[in-house]
Amino acid sequence: MALMQISVIPLGTIPSYAAFVADFQKVLAASNLSFTLTDMATIVEGDTAELLAIAAKIHEIPYSKGVQRVLTSISIDDRRDKAVHLGDKIQAVKNKLQ
Amino acid sequence: MALMQISVIPLGTIPSYAAFVADFQKVLAASNLSFTLTDMATIVEGDTAELLAIAAKIHEIPYSKGVQRVLTSISIDDRRDKAVHLGDKIQAVKNKLQ
Amino acid sequence: MALMQISVIPLGTIPSYAAFVADFQKVLAASNLSFTLTDMATIVEGDTAELLAIAAKIHEIPYSKGVQRVLTSISIDDRRDKAVHLGDKIQAVKNKLQ
Amino acid sequence: MALMQISVIPLGTIPSYAAFVADFQKVLAASNLSFTLTDMATIVEGDTAELLAIAAKIHEIPYSKGVQRVLTSISIDDRRDKAVHLGDKIQAVKNKLQ
Repeated sequence: MALMQISVIPLGTIPSYAAFVADFQKVLAASNLSFTLTDMATIVEGDTAELLAIAAKIHEIPYSKGVQRVLTSISIDDRRDKAVHLGDKIQAVKNKLQ
Repeated sequence: MALMQISVIPLGTIPSYAAFVADFQKVLAASNLSFTLTDMATIVEGDTAELLAIAAKIHEIPYSKGVQRVLTSISIDDRRDKAVHLGDKIQAVKNKLQ
Repeated sequence: MALMQISVIPLGTIPSYAAFVADFQKVLAASNLSFTLTDMATIVEGDTAELLAIAAKIHEIPYSKGVQRVLTSISIDDRRDKAVHLGDKIQAVKNKLQ
Repeated sequence: MALMQISVIPLGTIPSYAAFVADFQKVLAASNLSFTLTDMATIVEGDTAELLAIAAKIHEIPYSKGVQRVLTSISIDDRRDKAVHLGDKIQAVKNKLQ
């Protein structure tokens, strides 16, 4: 199980980043994957094949709005020794801080 | 005002990532900067000079624990046309989704 | 046409990063994609679907060597207004410097 | 000794990325640091304090040209167990491939 952090940046003139990110959230909400929005990216939980498939889908959204160039950044943290879920790593850090 | 996303990865054998990340949080808590922990990184609010100064400090932590190689990834989103605070971008997306 | 920058980092104890990266280069050489190795990553040229497919393949390599956790970072710069090839952006900068 | 990979992306309408990147190269050429341009980023060699200082300088360039928002991405690979120079990692991979 893996976590993917993804940001999709349309380059050039655009009306609103927030509108694009809202569209990404709608695509994610229509999938059966868990995800969370941060101030810098979206984090999605799934296996790597699922995560790359949804990344491909999100990456296409700006082109459908007339954007000609998109910069997509993805980080995948993929453990095979145990299941990892959204919130687990934050919780592990909090436990160390207590 | 800018937001910085930072992750500091010790390479090689390490006992626990969560312990390292907990140390980063303590350094951040001792600064006067606002920050938030996500499952993939830490996001800090400040001006770029402050952000790079705290990044330099966090980057050093693993070496003090015997780590020999550290990979630090930083993204800075720096707007000069308006103040940006932690939570603002998430709120802007939520407003679009309503 | 797009360019993808990819780095695949095995976490925990590993014998040699260079050996892993050499394995990635072999997988890329067996594909029909153009690619180049830098000191920090590998850059591959292709359309986004091809690039994500080869990323998925490279991401799996460390697990076949006993690694349990892999951190893969991908950046895709995808222009739809013109073809982009390896070396083009370096050449464009050099032209500006003349 | 460390290697820093840096890309500085002006967001919004801009005339030419290549012109911006050419300006970054001029700032780097005026420093005493070794650097190399790839198709996706610039890689600079130095100690981490030097690298973050030059990153701060490069990050400011687009604002002097009227850009209001800049996204800067930095990766620092910092080994304290041995000196690392530009070209070393590429060479290590090539040695494995022979």
